[in-house]
Amino acid sequence: MDSHRPTPTAALGELRGLLRRRLDTSPAVLDLHGRDESPFAPRRPDAVAFVHSTDEVAAVLRICSEHRLPVVPFGAGSSVDGHVLPTRGGLSLDLTGMDRILEVDADDLIVRVEAGVRRVALGERLGREGLLFGVDPGADATLGGMAATGASGTLALRYGSMRENVLGLTAVLADGRVIRTGAATRKSSAGYDLTRLLVGSEGTLAVITELTLKIHGIPERIAAAACSFSSLAQGVAAAVAIVGSGIPLARCEFLDAAAIRAVDARFGTHSPERPTLFFEFHGSPASVAADAAAAEAIAPLHGGDDFRWSLDQAERDRLWRARHEVLFASLATRPDCRALSTDVCVPRSRLAECVAAAESLLVGAPFPFVIIGHLGDGNFHAILLIDPEEPSEVAAAEGAAERLTEIAIGFGGTSSGERGIGLGKWALVREVGIEGVVVMRSIKRALDPLGILNPDKIFAADGGRDGPDGLRV
Amino acid sequence: MDSHRPTPTAALGELRGLLRRRLDTSPAVLDLHGRDESPFAPRRPDAVAFVHSTDEVAAVLRICSEHRLPVVPFGAGSSVDGHVLPTRGGLSLDLTGMDRILEVDADDLIVRVEAGVRRVALGERLGREGLLFGVDPGADATLGGMAATGASGTLALRYGSMRENVLGLTAVLADGRVIRTGAATRKSSAGYDLTRLLVGSEGTLAVITELTLKIHGIPERIAAAACSFSSLAQGVAAAVAIVGSGIPLARCEFLDAAAIRAVDARFGTHSPERPTLFFEFHGSPASVAADAAAAEAIAPLHGGDDFRWSLDQAERDRLWRARHEVLFASLATRPDCRALSTDVCVPRSRLAECVAAAESLLVGAPFPFVIIGHLGDGNFHAILLIDPEEPSEVAAAEGAAERLTEIAIGFGGTSSGERGIGLGKWALVREVGIEGVVVMRSIKRALDPLGILNPDKIFAADGGRDGPDGLRV
Repeated sequence: MDSHRPTPTAALGELRGLLRRRLDTSPAVLDLHGRDESPFAPRRPDAVAFVHSTDEVAAVLRICSEHRLPVVPFGAGSSVDGHVLPTRGGLSLDLTGMDRILEVDADDLIVRVEAGVRRVALGERLGREGLLFGVDPGADATLGGMAATGASGTLALRYGSMRENVLGLTAVLADGRVIRTGAATRKSSAGYDLTRLLVGSEGTLAVITELTLKIHGIPERIAAAACSFSSLAQGVAAAVAIVGSGIPLARCEFLDAAAIRAVDARFGTHSPERPTLFFEFHGSPASVAADAAAAEAIAPLHGGDDFRWSLDQAERDRLWRARHEVLFASLATRPDCRALSTDVCVPRSRLAECVAAAESLLVGAPFPFVIIGHLGDGNFHAILLIDPEEPSEVAAAEGAAERLTEIAIGFGGTSSGERGIGLGKWALVREVGIEGVVVMRSIKRALDPLGILNPDKIFAADGGRDGPDGLRV
Repeated sequence: MDSHRPTPTAALGELRGLLRRRLDTSPAVLDLHGRDESPFAPRRPDAVAFVHSTDEVAAVLRICSEHRLPVVPFGAGSSVDGHVLPTRGGLSLDLTGMDRILEVDADDLIVRVEAGVRRVALGERLGREGLLFGVDPGADATLGGMAATGASGTLALRYGSMRENVLGLTAVLADGRVIRTGAATRKSSAGYDLTRLLVGSEGTLAVITELTLKIHGIPERIAAAACSFSSLAQGVAAAVAIVGSGIPLARCEFLDAAAIRAVDARFGTHSPERPTLFFEFHGSPASVAADAAAAEAIAPLHGGDDFRWSLDQAERDRLWRARHEVLFASLATRPDCRALSTDVCVPRSRLAECVAAAESLLVGAPFPFVIIGHLGDGNFHAILLIDPEEPSEVAAAEGAAERLTEIAIGFGGTSSGERGIGLGKWALVREVGIEGVVVMRSIKRALDPLGILNPDKIFAADGGRDGPDGLRV
């Protein structure tokens, strides 16, 4: 692709004519848009475009298309998988200026937002009206980024992931055409499901500029609880038993002892330094009391002997903020480290085996690690805290991550429960097979024939290899 | 396309070599595969292939691809929108022989089935193990057909439609390549969501041969109730109020007085001949009692004064069987009529307006009609019982259906809540716009470049027009 592309000077000149001072090539801004929270090496874009509207995105993409300039959509920059890295230079398209909440419809439980709105800001606005949005990844990500990666979070057990919560999109194709997908209804069977094709497409098929999202009323009663265990295996067994019993949990989160220590250090709290499950129950006062009592009765059967309540909202908020910040708290435990983090998801019946496999793969590793998980969904993360300058650590971490992902796929699971593929492409072909990747590539070519949209993400840009070895860019 | 296609003789010869007596060209079989429950004119295929495995489907498609022979997947033949009509002849690919339930996993709440398994058979098998599948369209459709059309049913309010309940697929592409999509997990973000792209693609992108589906435990307590009203508007208002109150209903179905009469006539029952809401509540004994009492308290505020319980399972089964058979009961009220049926779905806040618009469009029509709905989802059907030999009736019915669909789209709704587009293509472009249809077409071309898979469904085969007028084949 690079060989066909003229030097970006002409393209940047046209973009400057369109955006004026909102086309930025200052080194600090290029640096900020050339890295994320992943362990991959930074790479500056040629320029950053700060856009304000769908029409402006369309105009930018027409110019980029004409000049074959790569375009990487950029939101919070919180990807841990390299999604926003401009591997081939080009334009970083910063959508954070599109941060308007366009409509809150409490009757139909729908909200319309621009792609740059962040989840915490949306949550605060909805909370004032007694409403909530059910997807809460760890980072304060943009809704556009969350849709692009198919994000989920601690509440997916009850409310689903972005795949279930995005009802419709406005998106701009590589050549600047604008499409509107979906409807403001609970169901639709009108033609191909372009909404769900774009959710999880990681900016490779179109740039999402507006979203229509499903929201919920804040339940009448919310209760949270924590319970600790003397081993990882006990905690996982308790989670599997409680979720498997059919108790309708809203959240069922797991932190191992190292994660608890990291969070305590960051927030100055003092929790039992043992593997811990955190629960949340949503419903009527009667149903929450019954559900929580049922969970409290099961936990001791698996060694959980300190079931603790957090009924107070401030305490609950502290608890979930701590949970959301585990990644940053863990990074803070080792100076200058980076996180290589897996995202496997397996059927619930294989969860105990898979977590045990992760533990035995990592015990004795030459780097610290934490294991945390959305256990109710069968999804957990092993966060490997590596020194990126130490090749032996990097190699050991990559080896362990690959092995764990292979094990999960062997259990009927997936390499990515909620974060997408990004630059970690090697696993995809093992999961969906060569034919699956070939079909995805053919869709990519149909929608972005010049290959300008977020090249190298999900699969190698054209010319790369799809075989089970040598898959990295 | 037709001009490039050699006469099917050679293709049929090769197919006969592969399938022997399971390639059928007898007139009775061709007739059976040349019609469905839609008002569209029958059209025979050139032959019918009765296939037994994914490999066999792949071999058939390789032959059809080589000879550019159109292929129309065929299941129960219960489409009301022309999905299985071989508009250009070719092969009807009958999957009903692939009717094995491959695996029931009660731990992970997953079932794997071949595409020809029918929903009633699946429900009976799961019921013996205390499990249920949550999608129940009116017809005893095949699971493959239900996935292909993105079907829903009376339980979608609680369990979602096929889009939420299909976790993975095995599918055969036009050229015979086999892909496996999805994972046996609750979440996945691994690459493009090919599962949801194929769900609702109406056999135009691939032939679905196996499905992995989400299932549920049968709730501890189930209660059903009915309540009648003196007007359509009252019944709709009651449904909107009850669903909007947040009571977690499993079902909320509406039948107008004409539908009640039709069902009574078919089943020999004697119900109040008034617009009627049917509810079902799933949960624990305590939650069901609380939810049902809350609904019973709201109904009288909208004129519902005869709230009646159906606690007995046999009575409940009768009730829902009657609901599922409304279409056939209605057809039986007028000799030799066909049903032209709309499938609009709107945001709940616009439901009352939209149903009222349907009623006023149809009052005084030169044909009988019934209005029924999955009101909890905002989805309802106006079933127009027309004499297909009477051009003035057909024209009046088509005009009313188009007008109603336009109204629904104007309310932010969709032309198809659960049945897909089929041959009723005129509405799609009004809903998703020219650019949306162009994107869908480009995906179609990427996956089926020869255009052999179910041509003319969703949009006109290549060469047709996408403009807002003249859209019919």
